[in-house]
Amino acid sequence: MTTEVRTIAFVLYPGLTPLDLVGPLQVLASLTQLGLPYRTITVSATTNPLPTDLPLNLSATHTYAEAPAPYALLVPGGGGPTFRAMADEELLDYLRTTSPQTELTLSVCTGSLLLAAAGLLEGRNATTHWACRHLLPRFGATPVAERWVTDGRFITAAGVAAGIDAALHVVQLLAGPEVARGVQTGIEYDPQPPLGGIDWSTVDFEQGEQWSKAMIQEGLSNHPALLAKLLD
Amino acid sequence: MTTEVRTIAFVLYPGLTPLDLVGPLQVLASLTQLGLPYRTITVSATTNPLPTDLPLNLSATHTYAEAPAPYALLVPGGGGPTFRAMADEELLDYLRTTSPQTELTLSVCTGSLLLAAAGLLEGRNATTHWACRHLLPRFGATPVAERWVTDGRFITAAGVAAGIDAALHVVQLLAGPEVARGVQTGIEYDPQPPLGGIDWSTVDFEQGEQWSKAMIQEGLSNHPALLAKLLD
Repeated sequence: MTTEVRTIAFVLYPGLTPLDLVGPLQVLASLTQLGLPYRTITVSATTNPLPTDLPLNLSATHTYAEAPAPYALLVPGGGGPTFRAMADEELLDYLRTTSPQTELTLSVCTGSLLLAAAGLLEGRNATTHWACRHLLPRFGATPVAERWVTDGRFITAAGVAAGIDAALHVVQLLAGPEVARGVQTGIEYDPQPPLGGIDWSTVDFEQGEQWSKAMIQEGLSNHPALLAKLLD
Repeated sequence: MTTEVRTIAFVLYPGLTPLDLVGPLQVLASLTQLGLPYRTITVSATTNPLPTDLPLNLSATHTYAEAPAPYALLVPGGGGPTFRAMADEELLDYLRTTSPQTELTLSVCTGSLLLAAAGLLEGRNATTHWACRHLLPRFGATPVAERWVTDGRFITAAGVAAGIDAALHVVQLLAGPEVARGVQTGIEYDPQPPLGGIDWSTVDFEQGEQWSKAMIQEGLSNHPALLAKLLD
């Protein structure tokens, strides 16, 4: 008897925030390293190096055309370039055609806004980076202030580092708590933020909304319809 | 008056663990994004795409020859390929010549073993991935079981995800707690591991040592002297 290997595809696009991608990818690639029947791939319009919001270029293993139909799909987020990607029809088409065939569609940070822009989160509960939660209703989604939010096949994680927590949750779903503990120990994810967790009572949501406005204007200056949808 | 911009250089080499690199890079690049006088670069033997232990290639911004002398240096770790890099004389030379001129030399995970192999940690306290702590004394370093360990200009972090905590500590050192809190909130690092932190009483250190032995054998099969130094 052969076990079918399930593909988990991580979407790359120019300007993304690498930690959104690499946190969950390091977690989920551990399934393969542990000998479980999963393989991770990275997918983009090209396999040439893509810029990110760090001094680091990333190259995917597969183009959209070459990538096998995945069991699970993950969309990372970012700042201005992620808003720009909301007008990237090739990316949105890939999400629209691929996601409905997956068992799990995941996003990290503003990656959920790309799922939303593809029309996939209408009527769904979802989350995103705290500074962008107010944008989800513009695509018919209901924002939920949780570390990750499950609705049907969708699991959307909060900002950047939340992708690590959400990915460990997915490992637990797919392979149980013992494997999830093993993966967590392997990547030594025993968080000790030097100043403790975030004290949300001190977070300036008004400033966050201003930051998101600047990102939208930077990313979508050439797309008046989307600009209006997000800012008016 | 002009403020001198301080360079923080992140070293890339084939086969590294991307989360070791990207966690601290996302944290420290936030200093630039906040308008503080720091810039991050990535440095390697080549700016061509390099393989990693994930289905993801990374390209650096600078070669060793082109990179400006950095204020701070960070060395990420990995599995077998990181042990292989202990025999990469070009990399070790870069560490040997560059580190003494830095104010801060950082490592994540088995990155500290590369600093050790370069002869930089002799007589120092240091840490590394939990499964490799027993290897530090082979290079004259004293292992300490902490999330990160400071000794002079060296800050060595524990395995993989510990780089995020250590990098936030560095932000606090360089720019104070208010900026560190801002960076942490920006990357939404409010950890909620679904199964809680690691219960170290259940971790199989014996198995970890076996894992490290396999990695050493994989990485250093062509380097009998290093192999003997690490295994005998």
